[in-house]
Amino acid sequence: MREIRVFSPASVSNVACGFDVMGFAIEQLGDQLVMRKSNKKGVIISKITGDGGILPYNVEANTAGKPLLSMSKKYSIEEGIEIEIHKKMPFGSGLGSSAASAVAAVYAFNKLFNLSLTKRELLKYALEGEEVASGAIHADNVAPSLYGGFVLIRGYNPIDIIEIATPPQLYCVVVHPQIEIKTKESRKILPKEIPLKDAVTQWGNTAALTAGLLTEDYNLISRSLQDVVIEPHRAHTIPGLHSIKSAAMANKALGCSISGSGPSIFALSKGERDANRVGEAMYKAMLESGLKGTLYISKISKKGPQVLESR
Amino acid sequence: MREIRVFSPASVSNVACGFDVMGFAIEQLGDQLVMRKSNKKGVIISKITGDGGILPYNVEANTAGKPLLSMSKKYSIEEGIEIEIHKKMPFGSGLGSSAASAVAAVYAFNKLFNLSLTKRELLKYALEGEEVASGAIHADNVAPSLYGGFVLIRGYNPIDIIEIATPPQLYCVVVHPQIEIKTKESRKILPKEIPLKDAVTQWGNTAALTAGLLTEDYNLISRSLQDVVIEPHRAHTIPGLHSIKSAAMANKALGCSISGSGPSIFALSKGERDANRVGEAMYKAMLESGLKGTLYISKISKKGPQVLESR
Repeated sequence: MREIRVFSPASVSNVACGFDVMGFAIEQLGDQLVMRKSNKKGVIISKITGDGGILPYNVEANTAGKPLLSMSKKYSIEEGIEIEIHKKMPFGSGLGSSAASAVAAVYAFNKLFNLSLTKRELLKYALEGEEVASGAIHADNVAPSLYGGFVLIRGYNPIDIIEIATPPQLYCVVVHPQIEIKTKESRKILPKEIPLKDAVTQWGNTAALTAGLLTEDYNLISRSLQDVVIEPHRAHTIPGLHSIKSAAMANKALGCSISGSGPSIFALSKGERDANRVGEAMYKAMLESGLKGTLYISKISKKGPQVLESR
Repeated sequence: MREIRVFSPASVSNVACGFDVMGFAIEQLGDQLVMRKSNKKGVIISKITGDGGILPYNVEANTAGKPLLSMSKKYSIEEGIEIEIHKKMPFGSGLGSSAASAVAAVYAFNKLFNLSLTKRELLKYALEGEEVASGAIHADNVAPSLYGGFVLIRGYNPIDIIEIATPPQLYCVVVHPQIEIKTKESRKILPKEIPLKDAVTQWGNTAALTAGLLTEDYNLISRSLQDVVIEPHRAHTIPGLHSIKSAAMANKALGCSISGSGPSIFALSKGERDANRVGEAMYKAMLESGLKGTLYISKISKKGPQVLESR
């Protein structure tokens, strides 16, 4: 194999109650990455599309590039590598754009050089890429994008990824208003300490959401999708959040909150018909809030990254 | 029916990571309560045994008595009620002694007057009893004692009880050192605010423990049984905790922590053989710490309260 084109999915992290520990992958939306063997030594980014000229060609500073430097070294790859990054999703959107690129890169590398690495091994390198973008090691977008489906990150020492089976009728609705929020900035808003009382409420909800997913109890999922810790601090950074959320809940969404650090807002719904109605209402509320943006409706993706072409 | 004798089980609350939201019932250990119809109006406590003379005969101030006053009024019971409370378990032990008495009372009342109330309805009154003892509404002993099995209390507004199926080989080991800790005092030790970082670790673990129980993943249960928030503040109140816990973990306990607010210390084990070995080691470590006390080994009780006799 000389060349491979892969797809890696977008993801929703935090999922209301699960700040820094939960996330799930979205079908369709995501990034494409082309990787080919080259005669020039080292790693080169030859093309980036769909980024409006913003992403760096400097390999060390690029979320897709950085992991490849580490992997080339670790696995003693002598050949040169050339990559093209095709952003097929908005970035700075709260949909795990940088994670999708990092995951696409490590996934393509593993396939192109036939290394047969496990997802657990790939995760480590993808996290290096995510760190370039967010300034910290956070797996709640990288892990769902890499594993597919709904993922729980129990802890980081060592990193402990748990795949949570999701009910078949669970749909995700996302509106992405066209405003940009930097993850780094959005983390600074958060307090270093939180009331024990609120923490207890939150861990009751994370446990209950996990139970709801595993027992296919949509009503329990709905009751658990509440964030009393993070959302109150970030709500003011997203104009229209209140009315978009109200529109979702009035149309029987199971729950609605900020996707990652925003500005995207996600809702979960039971069944496609509910998801479509919720999506329409959220989109309308976004427009009425004076915001332009995009609507996505998708099942929870069970696939993770995929090979699109190879030769 | 004129008279009924019931049993209500002891329980372990908090379960390491699940402060105020998790608990499970223990087989065998618990309280007995006799309730009979009487010609004297009102509620009378005629006998209390096994309490060393400490529990109040004043109905309003007694965890078993208080709920009966509310229920008699609510359900317009004209007949008098006489109860005997037989403490078959230590109190101030962190094993939900007051909860067991309160649950026994509401359960017996429901049966004696043939009210066919749901557990959800009984819970409300049992919580009134628990409040007499602990000064606050906490369901993490009352709910497991009433429902049996492993219980998650998602939240309190309104109260939301979720029964979590437990793996068949899950055993509980408890050592109860003979020192008394008051729940009220033990709550005062806790900080009002906690680091967000620790809260995130804790809700990763509560979610993971729930997943471990529901998917019968003993290894995941083990990794999740960690308390980085509450145990560090309470550890100094229980002499011997460190060495008892070390003994449990050295003998392949899945996890070990304080039961409720202590002084009892619980461990979970896979299978009876492991539980016996862990129990022996914990008991030995307790004695070596200069403490007297008792060892209990039990499956997670799936039963909740039971009728022992009626006539």
